[in-house]
Amino acid sequence: MKNSKPTKRSRSGSTPNGQKLPVAKPNTAIFPKVAVELAEIGKNFYTRGWVLGTSGNFSAVISREPLRLAITSTGLVRGEGRPSAEALLHLAIARGVDTGAILHTHSVWSTVLSGSHASQGGIALEGFEMLKGLAGVRTHKHREWLPILENSQDMIELGENVSKTLRESPHIHGFLLKEHGLYTWGVGLQEAKRHVEILEFLMEVLVRSGAAQSA
Amino acid sequence: MKNSKPTKRSRSGSTPNGQKLPVAKPNTAIFPKVAVELAEIGKNFYTRGWVLGTSGNFSAVISREPLRLAITSTGLVRGEGRPSAEALLHLAIARGVDTGAILHTHSVWSTVLSGSHASQGGIALEGFEMLKGLAGVRTHKHREWLPILENSQDMIELGENVSKTLRESPHIHGFLLKEHGLYTWGVGLQEAKRHVEILEFLMEVLVRSGAAQSA
Amino acid sequence: MKNSKPTKRSRSGSTPNGQKLPVAKPNTAIFPKVAVELAEIGKNFYTRGWVLGTSGNFSAVISREPLRLAITSTGLVRGEGRPSAEALLHLAIARGVDTGAILHTHSVWSTVLSGSHASQGGIALEGFEMLKGLAGVRTHKHREWLPILENSQDMIELGENVSKTLRESPHIHGFLLKEHGLYTWGVGLQEAKRHVEILEFLMEVLVRSGAAQSA
Amino acid sequence: MKNSKPTKRSRSGSTPNGQKLPVAKPNTAIFPKVAVELAEIGKNFYTRGWVLGTSGNFSAVISREPLRLAITSTGLVRGEGRPSAEALLHLAIARGVDTGAILHTHSVWSTVLSGSHASQGGIALEGFEMLKGLAGVRTHKHREWLPILENSQDMIELGENVSKTLRESPHIHGFLLKEHGLYTWGVGLQEAKRHVEILEFLMEVLVRSGAAQSA
Repeated sequence: MKNSKPTKRSRSGSTPNGQKLPVAKPNTAIFPKVAVELAEIGKNFYTRGWVLGTSGNFSAVISREPLRLAITSTGLVRGEGRPSAEALLHLAIARGVDTGAILHTHSVWSTVLSGSHASQGGIALEGFEMLKGLAGVRTHKHREWLPILENSQDMIELGENVSKTLRESPHIHGFLLKEHGLYTWGVGLQEAKRHVEILEFLMEVLVRSGAAQSA
Repeated sequence: MKNSKPTKRSRSGSTPNGQKLPVAKPNTAIFPKVAVELAEIGKNFYTRGWVLGTSGNFSAVISREPLRLAITSTGLVRGEGRPSAEALLHLAIARGVDTGAILHTHSVWSTVLSGSHASQGGIALEGFEMLKGLAGVRTHKHREWLPILENSQDMIELGENVSKTLRESPHIHGFLLKEHGLYTWGVGLQEAKRHVEILEFLMEVLVRSGAAQSA
Repeated sequence: MKNSKPTKRSRSGSTPNGQKLPVAKPNTAIFPKVAVELAEIGKNFYTRGWVLGTSGNFSAVISREPLRLAITSTGLVRGEGRPSAEALLHLAIARGVDTGAILHTHSVWSTVLSGSHASQGGIALEGFEMLKGLAGVRTHKHREWLPILENSQDMIELGENVSKTLRESPHIHGFLLKEHGLYTWGVGLQEAKRHVEILEFLMEVLVRSGAAQSA
Repeated sequence: MKNSKPTKRSRSGSTPNGQKLPVAKPNTAIFPKVAVELAEIGKNFYTRGWVLGTSGNFSAVISREPLRLAITSTGLVRGEGRPSAEALLHLAIARGVDTGAILHTHSVWSTVLSGSHASQGGIALEGFEMLKGLAGVRTHKHREWLPILENSQDMIELGENVSKTLRESPHIHGFLLKEHGLYTWGVGLQEAKRHVEILEFLMEVLVRSGAAQSA
């Protein structure tokens, strides 16, 4: 995802599924700053191989009442300037947790682990100092549960599954879609970016420790 | 492949095998833009380690009637400005599928997998969201077959083998040459580049999941 | 750790644990040069993935009598401009060995190995030419012992453990905290940086040779 | 090895072992161009992790009669501006093969493989298209033998061992020192650089294919 400028969507935007979406007004004062941050994050992640092809999409909450997101348009195989169908997942997350930014990446590590651990329903991350990089975590003894959801092309079904997961596990910092990738979030883009780095790091540690083979 | 400027070939160009080739007229209007794109892709891929040494070569279809390609000259161990012997493979692909650009890379992942899976004739990629980055693929449930062809230094024989593969499997997005590398294509250079990223990503996933050891 | 400018701390600085710390006077002549070097090292290590998230912290000894350190503020999940709680570990090292700079990184390799080898108390590095990159080492036959200390959030306890380790093994060039990361040092920042590169390189060699699986 | 400017040595230079060396006159016309190329190669290799710490050293033949080399000074743990003790190995290679440039790298892959395969005396590389990147190789069916020499700190003994290896195997393109690194060469710096890339690539393929575990 080389160009990750937020979609300038008219207020009458709708998803490929036809559902109306709350959309960002492009003239919102915060918009240019967000666009620069999204572009920097996109370039950084592209270089690290976390958003190859046209994978991944990022969003920032522009307003809460009503809920409005600025979201990158370069979803998977979709036309320029059209909101990604995965916008529904971003909305489900923004409604389910008190967050200002949501990042979705497709890394090799998350693809490998979400495949090898799918039958266990998630991955437990425990004992690592790096966990303290997650908001609110104060000790390496913390046990972080990273749920794995079944992947689907039905965004409404998947959005409901995400909402259900967030209701049941309100303290998680992210989740995986099976053989698809990572969703994580934060109060702002920089915290969300830090969460991507922390979770990707720990997934790489698990794979290199042999976790994918022994699952 | 650091310098990947297209070869400026006279119309009387011929391959090392002596076969006449349709060649690009360097003054074609599209040529400078293509040269810039090829250079950017070459630098990107070199940094990622997909065209180390002087491996890899890229081409863009300049015209269809007659068929003319702009092709990078830095093939393996060949003189500056001379068309690569592998130009015959690019021509075989351009004739076999309706494509505007063809990219050939030598990555560690494709070399490992095309060796470990050669006896199976190819690699099946299935269940990955990333597959949706391939043109025309709409679901992760898609099953992509990536054929592995025996490598050869006889470009005429190899070109015929490529043509046969494309006739038999018209829906593939690329193929591997055994312990050699990947060929893929797209309607334009950007789509072909996306296909390289998608296929390289998925091959890396397979190797890191242990596929090369268990083949 | 993208921004690694040294904390400009008042002389009345104290750690989160309330302990008084000797602090750097920001107007010290050496300060700007150190700040530039720390920023370059931080950027380099961030690109290599050794200080992802907000992990890692670096310090330079500004004066010996009294002992004063310039230390980066971006410790794990702590506010801007506040000294890291891990400053106590830097002080313990600066008191225990005659050093001018201390670097702490969180790499995948050190996290994997410090977990797999924790029960052995450390990692032996022997027979590698690369060992000659460590200060004072003249032959690849050198046996370097890299102790692994149990991780803890009690910095006073951990600082005492570090001091004890340095008294018992005065010739070591660094140590690991379990599933946390590497501490190393040098007469100046460049030597400390070289020690990070050497030790990270050798830990990567061990993991890729299968050491983490067979431990 | 970040700074890899060639040593400006006086004609009375001698190695740490006291042996007189033929040295480059710094005013030789070719010198500035060589210095720029060496710096570019050093930066490229440092980024790829092939000359971390202060490992690796590069040389270019300035004249044949008498034999004179420009060689980088940043050998392992040696003072600025002093020729590396390993200059003797460069001289042994320059005398043994008709070459214009010699490059020595310390990569993870060469360290792992030269350890795992030491008892076999070398590594056979066969069947890879990438082999055609080596000077004079025309087919992937080529079998390249990469000898592994026992490492030593006695440069005179090691130099003689190198000379003997080159007499016995005049067609090799490089060799490994056990748990130390790769030496390769070429008619000029660019060919030598290509040989580094080819050989490092193929060693990475072998390790990722499981060769280090099954040796």
